[in-house]
Amino acid sequence: MAKDNKKMVEQITSMDVDFAQWYTDVVKKAELMDYSSVKGCMIFRPYGYAIWENIQKDLDARFKALGHENVYMPMFIPESLLQKEKDHVEGFAPECAWVTIGGQNKLSEKLCVRPTSETLFCEHFKNVIQSYRDLPKLYNQWCSVVRWEKTTRPFLRTSEFLWQEGHTMHETEEEAREETLRMLKVYEDFYLEALAIPAVTGQKTEKEKFAGAEATYTIEPMMHNGVALQGGTTHYFGDGFAKAFDITFTGRDNQVRYPHQTSWGVSTRMIGAIIMTHGDDNGLILPPAIAPIQVVIVPIAQHKEGVLDKANELYDRLKAQGLRVKLDDSDQSTGWKFSQYEMKGVPVRLEIGPKDMENNSCVLVSRVTREKKFVSLDNLEEEVKAMLAQVHDELVARATANRIDKTSDATTHEEFLSIAENKPGFIRAMWCGDSACEDQLKDETGGVKSRCIPFVEDHLSDVCVCCGKPAKHMVIWGRQY
Amino acid sequence: MAKDNKKMVEQITSMDVDFAQWYTDVVKKAELMDYSSVKGCMIFRPYGYAIWENIQKDLDARFKALGHENVYMPMFIPESLLQKEKDHVEGFAPECAWVTIGGQNKLSEKLCVRPTSETLFCEHFKNVIQSYRDLPKLYNQWCSVVRWEKTTRPFLRTSEFLWQEGHTMHETEEEAREETLRMLKVYEDFYLEALAIPAVTGQKTEKEKFAGAEATYTIEPMMHNGVALQGGTTHYFGDGFAKAFDITFTGRDNQVRYPHQTSWGVSTRMIGAIIMTHGDDNGLILPPAIAPIQVVIVPIAQHKEGVLDKANELYDRLKAQGLRVKLDDSDQSTGWKFSQYEMKGVPVRLEIGPKDMENNSCVLVSRVTREKKFVSLDNLEEEVKAMLAQVHDELVARATANRIDKTSDATTHEEFLSIAENKPGFIRAMWCGDSACEDQLKDETGGVKSRCIPFVEDHLSDVCVCCGKPAKHMVIWGRQY
Repeated sequence: MAKDNKKMVEQITSMDVDFAQWYTDVVKKAELMDYSSVKGCMIFRPYGYAIWENIQKDLDARFKALGHENVYMPMFIPESLLQKEKDHVEGFAPECAWVTIGGQNKLSEKLCVRPTSETLFCEHFKNVIQSYRDLPKLYNQWCSVVRWEKTTRPFLRTSEFLWQEGHTMHETEEEAREETLRMLKVYEDFYLEALAIPAVTGQKTEKEKFAGAEATYTIEPMMHNGVALQGGTTHYFGDGFAKAFDITFTGRDNQVRYPHQTSWGVSTRMIGAIIMTHGDDNGLILPPAIAPIQVVIVPIAQHKEGVLDKANELYDRLKAQGLRVKLDDSDQSTGWKFSQYEMKGVPVRLEIGPKDMENNSCVLVSRVTREKKFVSLDNLEEEVKAMLAQVHDELVARATANRIDKTSDATTHEEFLSIAENKPGFIRAMWCGDSACEDQLKDETGGVKSRCIPFVEDHLSDVCVCCGKPAKHMVIWGRQY
Repeated sequence: MAKDNKKMVEQITSMDVDFAQWYTDVVKKAELMDYSSVKGCMIFRPYGYAIWENIQKDLDARFKALGHENVYMPMFIPESLLQKEKDHVEGFAPECAWVTIGGQNKLSEKLCVRPTSETLFCEHFKNVIQSYRDLPKLYNQWCSVVRWEKTTRPFLRTSEFLWQEGHTMHETEEEAREETLRMLKVYEDFYLEALAIPAVTGQKTEKEKFAGAEATYTIEPMMHNGVALQGGTTHYFGDGFAKAFDITFTGRDNQVRYPHQTSWGVSTRMIGAIIMTHGDDNGLILPPAIAPIQVVIVPIAQHKEGVLDKANELYDRLKAQGLRVKLDDSDQSTGWKFSQYEMKGVPVRLEIGPKDMENNSCVLVSRVTREKKFVSLDNLEEEVKAMLAQVHDELVARATANRIDKTSDATTHEEFLSIAENKPGFIRAMWCGDSACEDQLKDETGGVKSRCIPFVEDHLSDVCVCCGKPAKHMVIWGRQY
């Protein structure tokens, strides 16, 4: 057993020196993305897109297991359609991209490139919902959306991004509210089980909720540097959109009613969350469940007789287990290969050379701990799977420890401001329920906002940390990407 | 064994009465699509989108098996980028949708919503190709594209559609040309093996080739009514784009060279091809490989003791085989269920009732032949798989017979015009190679165009069917959607 903590990848800026630059270095050097000449838009390179494909495959199966069906709506929304729900259009119109010319002619009505598709779904729901027998409608869509952003950062905030948007319609308020929380739980489980990210969940305050929603719930992972990322949201709409779009159904009691609606979404921003939660100074660390390459096989002294044959044999054995394996038998040096897959965050490296072959063994190296383990080839499959599971568990443990370490309680206004200034991370503090206090704290701290009201609140004090009036909720606060 | 050819689904117009109306009825009644208020765009409903998902899954695996990697490019193309390749912009600019406003401001440069992504790929290739070691680049993208169409028809021609576009770069012309033909073969195999469509393949004439391509190849399935559909194309670009975008690489000989490029694509139009190739007066008939439901289980007298239990048991057994099965135990009548799944084109229906249970058997019904087969439950899995394979084979045989029946040879100008007027389908005829003759034949016939020059040409006569000059090629001609 050996451990090696030296920095292997020199071209990446250290996190402690400049976290933003570290992030930019990683996304470029690990070949996740490239910039394009289109302002605010990015290119997903094969390695970055493969992560998204693995995310899609896993999430899509979770959605379908709960009865959701995929559909595809047009990418354009006529201006009049977007305007049908007042709060919604106010929320989104400022960041829309508008098509005004089609086929060389000025359009009589301009078309918004969808920033989200509630209005399109509602227009369709009106056509396909007549009776309670048509409910629930549990729809999901994988697509790209556009929101014109002033400042952008790869994966975290781009003018175009990829996402899924669930849109459901239900007979009763109760069922719709259940769906909203059920899908939040799906996200929470996915973050933990697939992304190895233990995230906080809870309800957004009135001020922070989605345009047109009655209630918004959120999943808020904390990045390594203590900054939060809004990792996904679910919304309960009540029957507001249904009324605006005149969607009705005949109930079991023969009365005409409005259905109750939800929507929920997560995006390619999750790739940013993976990078910033798990990465280190040597680059990416990818959770095994979504890693495009789970195991990289690096032959040692590959010119020696039998080494490549053996490496290929091990490749086939692991491949047969359904693992995503890569054998790098290129003419690059062993050192280059080690550093390359380190940077790309491959969870487990397998080394096989002449000496290992003599011992009927190979070496497994964990990307997280860098622990080297000599394992018998007789147990190869089990050992590799065990190390992958271990990588996952260690990532969860590390991220959990980081979150606990970077979460502070504030019971007074001064304490809140002091923590906000001096210690990056989440602040737990009581709140009166007034959005004026949210505004004030954000102004005073230069950006600390309410992340959510968690489902389980502790009683830290009796009064709002800002105004001193009686507290209604414990809120988790933090800066965000 | 029984046979039943009566028309079960009365709400669908007969093909012979009005083929266009039959098509519209089928796409609506089988719940494949819905119209939206966005001109020229359509909504993919769950059943229609599920067909596309099955197509994607199959094709994606074929691409990846050949080493292709998926990427994602921005959906916008700045006007100046689109203009970099002259022929290309001339081909596409007339049908572009243009974004001119973003975030409430007029853009300094308008952005085209991608009609195809050659220009975006080239811009990226310039960044990532330096040496022969970086080649080949075998990229593919699944996305939606927009081409402003005047007259639209669901799946066949819509202003927005879903597709895949492969874009590859190669060291040599030979390798790129091979890729162009290799991907055409992938499409041909896919059409036959997954869609049960035996299509004609060949090269497009100069007049019909893609904007900016040196050579375009095509797959041309024939619809039931004899009209052709351009079912997919592959293009060899030479180094035209590479030169326009200044993409170079250092070769093995240390010389700086331009790489050779291809692109290739198929779209949701394939769903239209499936409908119009296989459908009948009772609605859809779906090839088993891409059918969202391969087997529907309809319990007979389901209120009788044990029937639903047995139906569920059979459901589990077929599901365990990886088959896509649906058990309809709703309170709709048996007749309604038969007609519903008939219309939706489910390849095999399984009926199970008290009498069948007594005999330890069930009834399988083929959607194509309507043949009823009593099978022992002991061999259920094998029998169902056999019938699915049989459905596939019968669809291929039927479509092949239709194509042969609707293909005619013309050796004189009069004969060509007479066939074009009187017999729908393909016409095989010799051609001099001059596009003036293509124009003339199209004008004279009101729309018969060259489909392709097939890879194996017969020698039907010595002279062009139009001008009488010496013939260069045998061309397959036909009307198209």
